Amino acid sequence: MHSLRFTTETSSNGLVERDFVVGEVPGVLWSPVAGPDHAPLVLMGHGGGLHKKTPAQVARAHDLVTRWGFSVVAIDAPGHGDRPLSAEDEQTRADFRQALTAGDKERFKSISVRYGSSLAERAVPEWQATLDALQELPEIGTEAPIGYGGGVSLGTAIGVPLTAIEPRITAAIFGGGFFVYEAQLEAARRITVPIQFLLPWDDEHVDRQSALALFDAFASTEKTLHANPGDHRTIRWIGLDQEFLVRHLAPAGTSPA
Amino acid sequence: MHSLRFTTETSSNGLVERDFVVGEVPGVLWSPVAGPDHAPLVLMGHGGGLHKKTPAQVARAHDLVTRWGFSVVAIDAPGHGDRPLSAEDEQTRADFRQALTAGDKERFKSISVRYGSSLAERAVPEWQATLDALQELPEIGTEAPIGYGGGVSLGTAIGVPLTAIEPRITAAIFGGGFFVYEAQLEAARRITVPIQFLLPWDDEHVDRQSALALFDAFASTEKTLHANPGDHRTIRWIGLDQEFLVRHLAPAGTSPA
Repeated sequence: MHSLRFTTETSSNGLVERDFVVGEVPGVLWSPVAGPDHAPLVLMGHGGGLHKKTPAQVARAHDLVTRWGFSVVAIDAPGHGDRPLSAEDEQTRADFRQALTAGDKERFKSISVRYGSSLAERAVPEWQATLDALQELPEIGTEAPIGYGGGVSLGTAIGVPLTAIEPRITAAIFGGGFFVYEAQLEAARRITVPIQFLLPWDDEHVDRQSALALFDAFASTEKTLHANPGDHRTIRWIGLDQEFLVRHLAPAGTSPA
Repeated sequence: MHSLRFTTETSSNGLVERDFVVGEVPGVLWSPVAGPDHAPLVLMGHGGGLHKKTPAQVARAHDLVTRWGFSVVAIDAPGHGDRPLSAEDEQTRADFRQALTAGDKERFKSISVRYGSSLAERAVPEWQATLDALQELPEIGTEAPIGYGGGVSLGTAIGVPLTAIEPRITAAIFGGGFFVYEAQLEAARRITVPIQFLLPWDDEHVDRQSALALFDAFASTEKTLHANPGDHRTIRWIGLDQEFLVRHLAPAGTSPA
């Protein structure tokens, strides 16, 4: 087992940001400068082609830390962010460009499914190793409630199989914006924790029905689908339940800091 | 034009409930005992087989009145509540019973569509006459912002064609739980005001896809779909945006009373 090694630390406005590595995987942990131990921990999964400090993700992390006293962790997916590209990653990027240039939607979809599946297979054990290492930190330990706040796209393609086999995750935010394949539906059928599912209603590439089928597949008795018009890269969420993770992870009686 | 005649008045806990008639249509107006004139007015449409004072509807009305200072109006749909049954209503009820007993789903659907269409045709002008009459009251006038808070089922079957032709309605809550027919989709395509759409994910009788098609049809740039597991009669909404009407109808700066 790899332990977690912090590399840099900066703090501002009541929040401390610490970059770390677990083995070869670079990550970032955001936490309150001062707060009780064992606060809820939220795992954030970034979208395809992005990285662990994508601005939208940083903003959500800051809100969870400064408003609710949570900790938030993000890691770079394989071939993303600060990580080297494998030969497979390089080839896939070239294939994506070619399919887009040719306007070949079927080919774009089949590359996406194959690549998403490969990324998820590699990322799930990385997330588990990261969790193991984080739980070695005294301020987190095994007592901190854990949720997945992955959002749409690649974050969900990885988060669904992770949540299906990871009993430490007790609530999860997923969404559309990626091509759902059969293994995803099978994983979803094994998930019983509360789910918030965010669906961009109009996606340039992705079939809406497959996202609806994924929502349908979750075995959770508590699940909420939230859809707004727009594509997953440009969407503005309106009327969203911002307290989903707080309701499910925070000790009773928690109120905004 | 019929004017509005109040028949009974009771008040408790800061809320006054006044029954009224406009022509032959019985209704109820809930308002704050004391409050400024021209507060937002919400039209509530009850479900099929129910009536204007259905407990769930009364509870939502009380919340809007006591928490936000809104007025809420509900009327009995044709053949519902305190209204006489026409020969068509009697026949339709008998037809429904027969189709249910026979387990004939196609027949149940065709009766629902025919009856829903007939009810909507009769109810839309009744709502318009009720609005005309309410706007004669000095505390409402033509200045009060107006929203439709119809919820699922018959309330939406009536509310969609009403909102499509009624420019006084500037925000609306609709939902699934009824058989959507082509005229509903046509009406939805003419609606541009903000929409909150509530979808019971699992309905005993009603096809989910037709509700999704209705949501898709709204021309509104701001529309939100919210789904939870359950049938429209038993559903427990979770993580719902309770302030949708408040955001769209209340003057800026309004906060809970």
